[in-house]
Amino acid sequence: MLVVLETGLPQERTQAIQARLRTLGFAVHARREGDRVVLGAVSVSGENRIEEVRAIPGVVEVKQIREPFKLASRSFKPDDSVIDVGGVLVGGPEVILMAGPCAVEDDHQVHETARAVASAGAKVLRGGAFKPRTSPYSFQGLGEEGLRILRRAADEFGMVLVSEIMDVSQLDLMLRYVDILQIGARNVQNFSLLRAVGQVDRAVLLKRGMASTIDEWLMSAEYLMAGGNHKVILCERGIRTFEKYTRNTLDLSAVPVVRQLSHLPIIVDPSHGVGVRSMVLPMARAAVAAGADGLLIEVHCDPEHALCDGQQSLLPEQFEVLAQQIRIIAGSVGRRLGPGS
Amino acid sequence: MLVVLETGLPQERTQAIQARLRTLGFAVHARREGDRVVLGAVSVSGENRIEEVRAIPGVVEVKQIREPFKLASRSFKPDDSVIDVGGVLVGGPEVILMAGPCAVEDDHQVHETARAVASAGAKVLRGGAFKPRTSPYSFQGLGEEGLRILRRAADEFGMVLVSEIMDVSQLDLMLRYVDILQIGARNVQNFSLLRAVGQVDRAVLLKRGMASTIDEWLMSAEYLMAGGNHKVILCERGIRTFEKYTRNTLDLSAVPVVRQLSHLPIIVDPSHGVGVRSMVLPMARAAVAAGADGLLIEVHCDPEHALCDGQQSLLPEQFEVLAQQIRIIAGSVGRRLGPGS
Amino acid sequence: MLVVLETGLPQERTQAIQARLRTLGFAVHARREGDRVVLGAVSVSGENRIEEVRAIPGVVEVKQIREPFKLASRSFKPDDSVIDVGGVLVGGPEVILMAGPCAVEDDHQVHETARAVASAGAKVLRGGAFKPRTSPYSFQGLGEEGLRILRRAADEFGMVLVSEIMDVSQLDLMLRYVDILQIGARNVQNFSLLRAVGQVDRAVLLKRGMASTIDEWLMSAEYLMAGGNHKVILCERGIRTFEKYTRNTLDLSAVPVVRQLSHLPIIVDPSHGVGVRSMVLPMARAAVAAGADGLLIEVHCDPEHALCDGQQSLLPEQFEVLAQQIRIIAGSVGRRLGPGS
Amino acid sequence: MLVVLETGLPQERTQAIQARLRTLGFAVHARREGDRVVLGAVSVSGENRIEEVRAIPGVVEVKQIREPFKLASRSFKPDDSVIDVGGVLVGGPEVILMAGPCAVEDDHQVHETARAVASAGAKVLRGGAFKPRTSPYSFQGLGEEGLRILRRAADEFGMVLVSEIMDVSQLDLMLRYVDILQIGARNVQNFSLLRAVGQVDRAVLLKRGMASTIDEWLMSAEYLMAGGNHKVILCERGIRTFEKYTRNTLDLSAVPVVRQLSHLPIIVDPSHGVGVRSMVLPMARAAVAAGADGLLIEVHCDPEHALCDGQQSLLPEQFEVLAQQIRIIAGSVGRRLGPGS
Repeated sequence: MLVVLETGLPQERTQAIQARLRTLGFAVHARREGDRVVLGAVSVSGENRIEEVRAIPGVVEVKQIREPFKLASRSFKPDDSVIDVGGVLVGGPEVILMAGPCAVEDDHQVHETARAVASAGAKVLRGGAFKPRTSPYSFQGLGEEGLRILRRAADEFGMVLVSEIMDVSQLDLMLRYVDILQIGARNVQNFSLLRAVGQVDRAVLLKRGMASTIDEWLMSAEYLMAGGNHKVILCERGIRTFEKYTRNTLDLSAVPVVRQLSHLPIIVDPSHGVGVRSMVLPMARAAVAAGADGLLIEVHCDPEHALCDGQQSLLPEQFEVLAQQIRIIAGSVGRRLGPGS
Repeated sequence: MLVVLETGLPQERTQAIQARLRTLGFAVHARREGDRVVLGAVSVSGENRIEEVRAIPGVVEVKQIREPFKLASRSFKPDDSVIDVGGVLVGGPEVILMAGPCAVEDDHQVHETARAVASAGAKVLRGGAFKPRTSPYSFQGLGEEGLRILRRAADEFGMVLVSEIMDVSQLDLMLRYVDILQIGARNVQNFSLLRAVGQVDRAVLLKRGMASTIDEWLMSAEYLMAGGNHKVILCERGIRTFEKYTRNTLDLSAVPVVRQLSHLPIIVDPSHGVGVRSMVLPMARAAVAAGADGLLIEVHCDPEHALCDGQQSLLPEQFEVLAQQIRIIAGSVGRRLGPGS
Repeated sequence: MLVVLETGLPQERTQAIQARLRTLGFAVHARREGDRVVLGAVSVSGENRIEEVRAIPGVVEVKQIREPFKLASRSFKPDDSVIDVGGVLVGGPEVILMAGPCAVEDDHQVHETARAVASAGAKVLRGGAFKPRTSPYSFQGLGEEGLRILRRAADEFGMVLVSEIMDVSQLDLMLRYVDILQIGARNVQNFSLLRAVGQVDRAVLLKRGMASTIDEWLMSAEYLMAGGNHKVILCERGIRTFEKYTRNTLDLSAVPVVRQLSHLPIIVDPSHGVGVRSMVLPMARAAVAAGADGLLIEVHCDPEHALCDGQQSLLPEQFEVLAQQIRIIAGSVGRRLGPGS
Repeated sequence: MLVVLETGLPQERTQAIQARLRTLGFAVHARREGDRVVLGAVSVSGENRIEEVRAIPGVVEVKQIREPFKLASRSFKPDDSVIDVGGVLVGGPEVILMAGPCAVEDDHQVHETARAVASAGAKVLRGGAFKPRTSPYSFQGLGEEGLRILRRAADEFGMVLVSEIMDVSQLDLMLRYVDILQIGARNVQNFSLLRAVGQVDRAVLLKRGMASTIDEWLMSAEYLMAGGNHKVILCERGIRTFEKYTRNTLDLSAVPVVRQLSHLPIIVDPSHGVGVRSMVLPMARAAVAAGADGLLIEVHCDPEHALCDGQQSLLPEQFEVLAQQIRIIAGSVGRRLGPGS
């Protein structure tokens, strides 16, 4: 529920009210609206103690949040959240490009790709060190060596780094290397992982699952936020349907739907969404036109020999064309794309 | 198959070859490529008589078309088809807006809506006189009276008219009033209707079915074309998935996929695709950014009292905003939107 | 709404009440419950005139039917409907087998197949004379000649005949030959066809569309019933999903769901539902175990050379095994399968 | 690949060949066929060294396995696998009933439910101590206390125990209490968890994910088997489709498909598959009629007050009816259900 406090309440009163709410079994998150404070209070026990809350002195109004997700909802926080990742602002006026290879293969590949995408305007380097693969016999990633390679390249080109975490046991390692922890489509309801990542102070890129409803996806964001980690970036990457020309069906209407339901930023991954190189560019343009806050794009300096997902990776020169076109589209919807390095 | 003829073959030779192909059991469609002629020959019997075709004097080369759709494929016709509907060119450099109410209710409603959308830049008036409704107890349309109202409004504002045909028995009537025959999602595999409409010389707007694969949809276009009617405009309008925030899941990747597989123009109907007014504008922008040749938009001067689909209809002033934004997006992908009336 | 009349009301009073309801804009269907009459009254205009109905003398009680389908609902008619097709009772204690080739090819094929399936226990002969085919270049059926062949075989082996009608224009012809008009999955929302078939006195087999919700499917049944034709048999035949090992995903839970929502009989078509011969038998057993009132099975005396759907057709000897197993399963759920001819 | 060895080869020769294959980069699994040995060799590196394998003395024949899953395929092992769980044989002639509450709530609930289901014929007790819940604010399970309660009840009524593991970190704990480790639908592609469980010697119940193709599901089984754990029981529990009357769409055709592709046993969970109590019984019958090796059923002694999934839980007396009906259906497909305790 939303608990609106009296205007100009002294800070110690505000804190006492928060303490009282915790005693009543609520998780409490405070935000300031002008010169008053609004508390988001989510019942951990599930009990409805609204009358007791109303009775607390200093409480002006109590409103139920109707959505099943509370902290992630626009009812809880009406203005857009902007996630600051080492100075890169996701959810602000700038459209953020995140680009890099599907899987790290070696230093040369990552270095060349990072240089190219940074120069075209990408602010975030992506690359997988731990790869979730359908087959146990496929390449599974380089592990920590891959993270080291990624970090070096990100630092050299002044980028921040996003990489996928597959399991709670990798958390400490990942925290030493990455700026944004990616939670993949297959782990969107790995609640143990969500809980663990909800405890740390690090940005998270939460992909939609291939069968996730938007409600379920926002509930997974709620798991992260309920643990205290509010730095959540959502990423639409296609849902599974009967259509087979594309790897998945990129559900771009999720962008305006999420923007209406939630204050969290949302980016789009057209590479996985369509799975075919020639479709990535038009769908990237469409995503930004629909209102996406950024794009996650697979780029590989030698896609023919990629160990993973080569058929959907752009060449560096194709990414440059994409960045140019996105710059124009961003301008036409009142946003912008920063310059390359 | 594609039958490439010798360069500079005299016309009577070309015609003799076509006659021979017909004797061999082929439907034949000729097109000129520079100073030679290429014949598209589709076996009606299903027999493969490729060697006999190769042996015809004047035939230089014979190539199989691998796709199940032949006349609709880019292999058959590499360059984009532009459909001329009374001077409105669908599939050319201009993005075409088609707009109007879901169902015709009365003269005033259609007149006011037509005036507004024409003034904002719509070239095609849409409106339903025969309505396919899930319930037999819902409003089913005004029938011929509705067509008369639509025709009057289209003529007054210099627009061409698209309206849905639900059954073969309506064909003669429809031909007296409409410029583009719309075949709805529920009739995409009504093969009797496709055959009948394939026999007439009138543009067709063929919507994708809610469970149509792109292949099946193009096969339905092939039904029309096999009958001789090549004036086919495809319309993506969303497919049925598990997601429930939107009425359907608008599959915008169908736009680049169709553009790759086929030479036919493709437009997008975001109104049915999402089914929620506030999502129509961002998805319309996304559709044009993805490469759509036009948009089909529901507009109603009084959506609260609409007899059909009011919740997804734009107000005239919202449509004007849409047209302005589409003008900008069209420019940013190298296309344009014509001026309003 | 359901309008319960006084017990023992004289017939002329009952008829006067029905006339009054028609004047108020209702379609009326009467049924007897013990010694009272219950009227199902469906508002054609959509107006709610419940108070006026309550005020009619002789009316004891008025209850709204909450489902969007009225005549098809169990609220309207609590007991199972049994459809009598020339003495074959669909929806009664006997599980009805309907079997035959996908498409009629020639007299020999139909005769041999009919003899075999009748001898194994099938009471209804199926076969397509008009075939809805995805490709305009595929075999489209023999038309009236096919109907003649089917009728002859059905008569010879004492079976009733079901065959698909694709278009309103075929209705008169079909009525001369078939006992059950089949409406195919692609025409489940061909409302013109539904209206026309709703006007005639002939049993209908209404297949579920590949993207039909159960509600929509029952609304299509309502179209038939609203026209006065209550002899509707529903047929589950698989819905379209992402899974590709089977042609469709046979949704057997539709059987208990429909039995709860509606009084209409429901049969299952495992041949189209799975599309692979070796899966037909287990799914046929499962359908009857789930409560289906019958099965529609493709059988072909020479499936390798079938012009349509050979890969899912059973051989006559496989159908015999199926009938034996269904006899056992039927017994184990308190039903039975009649003897062969 | 399958490597067939000479008949009657001495054991040390067989072992030397296995060692050689490991040197060449293969994981090797041996099985005896009559008096010869067949080795399943799966290349870990992905290299095709078939000629080198052919050249090894004692090798008679080398056959590629075409399926992406190797150890899970029928090509690798033609006869049905029977998993022995403490004397309960899953995949043998007996249909195995697994039943119990969705989530453990207290000792009384589990004890009463276990007594009832054991008496009706269930051999396996199910119950969740760690619950994957869409909302972080829902009841998450009792943890180890729940496992203790389950173990006690299973022991008292002579049952074996299945319970869900959600994370690698729970593995040691789970191994102390449960006989079958359940991997839930949301974790079907949690590859870290699959790898860890693949290392232990304990039966696994692997649910299908709601968007898993059958291929992907079998690939997840392959992860378990590649680690050395071949005691895998598959469980169909419904896939996500557009239909909303049921919680999921139970894909019973998966049963015959899996039986054709794989030697692993497959059971069905109709409780999650349909999500509505009244549909559980007909779908349970259908599952066994389709060939399922067992059923997983939610039973609760007081479903109205269940903390989780009460609306789909059977009452103990309903489960007894189910067991009686399953006994009859099992008999009618040549199988049997053991007597109750």
